[in-house]
Amino acid sequence: MNDLEKLAELSQKTSSKIVLLVVDGLGGLPHPETGKTELETARTPNLDRLAAKGACGLTEPVGAGITPGSAPGILALLGYDPLRYTIGRGALEAVGVDFDLQEGDVAARGNLCTVDQDGLISDRRAGRISTEKSTELCHLLGKIDLGIAQTFVLPVREHRFALVLRGRGLSADLGDSDPHKAGVPPRPVLPLTPGAETAAAAANRFIEEAKLLLRHHRPANMVLLRGFSHRPHHPDLGSVYKLEPAAIAAYPMYRGLARLVGMELLDTGSTVEEEFRTLQQHYAEHDFFFVHVKKTDAAGEDGDFERKVRAIEEVDAVLPLVLEMGPDVLVVTGDHSTPALMKGHSWHPVPFLLYSKWCRGGGVGKFCERTCLSGELGRLAAREAMALALAHALKLTKYGA
Amino acid sequence: MNDLEKLAELSQKTSSKIVLLVVDGLGGLPHPETGKTELETARTPNLDRLAAKGACGLTEPVGAGITPGSAPGILALLGYDPLRYTIGRGALEAVGVDFDLQEGDVAARGNLCTVDQDGLISDRRAGRISTEKSTELCHLLGKIDLGIAQTFVLPVREHRFALVLRGRGLSADLGDSDPHKAGVPPRPVLPLTPGAETAAAAANRFIEEAKLLLRHHRPANMVLLRGFSHRPHHPDLGSVYKLEPAAIAAYPMYRGLARLVGMELLDTGSTVEEEFRTLQQHYAEHDFFFVHVKKTDAAGEDGDFERKVRAIEEVDAVLPLVLEMGPDVLVVTGDHSTPALMKGHSWHPVPFLLYSKWCRGGGVGKFCERTCLSGELGRLAAREAMALALAHALKLTKYGA
Repeated sequence: MNDLEKLAELSQKTSSKIVLLVVDGLGGLPHPETGKTELETARTPNLDRLAAKGACGLTEPVGAGITPGSAPGILALLGYDPLRYTIGRGALEAVGVDFDLQEGDVAARGNLCTVDQDGLISDRRAGRISTEKSTELCHLLGKIDLGIAQTFVLPVREHRFALVLRGRGLSADLGDSDPHKAGVPPRPVLPLTPGAETAAAAANRFIEEAKLLLRHHRPANMVLLRGFSHRPHHPDLGSVYKLEPAAIAAYPMYRGLARLVGMELLDTGSTVEEEFRTLQQHYAEHDFFFVHVKKTDAAGEDGDFERKVRAIEEVDAVLPLVLEMGPDVLVVTGDHSTPALMKGHSWHPVPFLLYSKWCRGGGVGKFCERTCLSGELGRLAAREAMALALAHALKLTKYGA
Repeated sequence: MNDLEKLAELSQKTSSKIVLLVVDGLGGLPHPETGKTELETARTPNLDRLAAKGACGLTEPVGAGITPGSAPGILALLGYDPLRYTIGRGALEAVGVDFDLQEGDVAARGNLCTVDQDGLISDRRAGRISTEKSTELCHLLGKIDLGIAQTFVLPVREHRFALVLRGRGLSADLGDSDPHKAGVPPRPVLPLTPGAETAAAAANRFIEEAKLLLRHHRPANMVLLRGFSHRPHHPDLGSVYKLEPAAIAAYPMYRGLARLVGMELLDTGSTVEEEFRTLQQHYAEHDFFFVHVKKTDAAGEDGDFERKVRAIEEVDAVLPLVLEMGPDVLVVTGDHSTPALMKGHSWHPVPFLLYSKWCRGGGVGKFCERTCLSGELGRLAAREAMALALAHALKLTKYGA
């Protein structure tokens, strides 16, 4: 019996409400000058007060030393073993732009890129062309008619797009055309298993047509495809936990992820305050809210320590909007660490705070990496978070006689 | 997907270097008079300084309450689940003396022992006879011609030797002749599965011949055999982690272990300083070094608290030789605890210290059992160590989209 099956058996419908606030890339590393992490540097009186009363810990999203991508980090917090429940890059990208990916569709992550006169890749991201330009080119590519498969070309952001092939019997067992480096030509898409030949032919035909259509659009004069995948079939979050879940996320990928596990997507603005206002508006309609804040991660990825500090302070400043509603359980954590010093995701455990009237509490005076470790939850796996949230919301019945 | 497979998928070749310093039997128990463990008693300014900046924790080699032998302790630190990747005692002993154990060979650990006139064992270790004398007797035993199998008798140290039988279709599913106690006669070697009869006959024939050859060599007038085993086929450490690994170990068994997982063995003297000098000499040639210090464990096994303290201090004193080279990741830990008070291995978790520029650090002012628990790694499984080392050396790519 895996964790989800166990929780499905124990979970029960109640009127209590859970808010899971994911502050993306929350964990950090100490600034060399001050010795303090982003979270330690930020002024966070509201979070600190909750930390003192709530249950704190440090989560490991996937496992010791493993740096998670965004999908495994979020899935783990929702209780899905990230080593078992995977999502292909293509599928994630497609659902992330609100595309209704259907059974049998094959999705790929695409890059508009630059190739030189010899056909060698000179820039895998076509100079990160504007979203406007990219959208225009995706529209052009969307006209490609493959005959054997219907084609959807979905602009995402800058050079990124998603390609969806819809047809009968298309396998997603395909190799990348993206060689993941410059100076070499794009690869042909190879069928990785017998039966994938039709899909490979369709993908290669798309690439050839795209090359022709884009030939005068340098720097975006070619495409690269990777992460061919079907829509995964993960257990429905609402059914497993007996919840009416809603997602408040502005950034496409997280919306896609939430949709894949069956959450209702709420329309929202992209600032933290707008997200919290969305929560207020829909508070009566659901009993589980996944609220995703992106800008902490974006600042960390940019290596901007100060901006990450301010983004954390922004969350803290508007947190009273959430507290006013009095959720039975409020969890504040991240899906992974994004230390500004590393300019990217990292493997470091993530501060975790669960606030409810049923916590032991005490001991942690400030919400940050070092204090959380001595909180009542210690070091925990991120996929334990959901069980803890349900338990503190009194949504889990007793196990065993 | 088990841990090794996951890491094999995520690991990448880089120029960064990792030094894994295993101070055998490092963990201890408090001296009844001072209340301090061996490590707490030792003066270790260098380790303390690293502990303050690095990531500390307490490792569990196999699991709560489990006392590991030497092989599982080391294998766990190298990332191999010690419950899954086992090594027979005979195989370990044979490769430990640089014997080229081949596919199909059957190896056993041997003791020269003393039997009385009634054939009852009076000393399982033949008075711990000298290595010189033992080597001479092994040479004598090596002349035994079994016909059905070729015989190699390899002196190890004092009363210890390894026996290797090489022939067609020899099974290693054999019971020990060593009854593991005195006052009883040696047992016949029993075939434990159908098909092991030939090997059992060969082993018993060897024992009979040995008894004859040794009859005038009291106290070493008999042999005891145990741990019949084949060479295991464990994944190659270098391939899994994309490393060029080297082992610096003076004690045979650890060399054997390192060889079994594909490390290059470097010639070295046996003092800690000599081992560290060997590291310096070969520093450019490899990117992963397993350095094994034996004397801490030996002192612990002898119940010599003070000698273990001094052995720890010796490691600390020459540690600057390692630090000078500036490895990207330095791990200092033990493969298990060997409290002098218990005169043997124990189940107690082991102090663990990982030093790299990517640690959060802080909080631990002294490297010892009690402080390590409050370090950023808390209580961890020893087999998480390798993933952490690779991560901090930036040798692991992101998991998932």
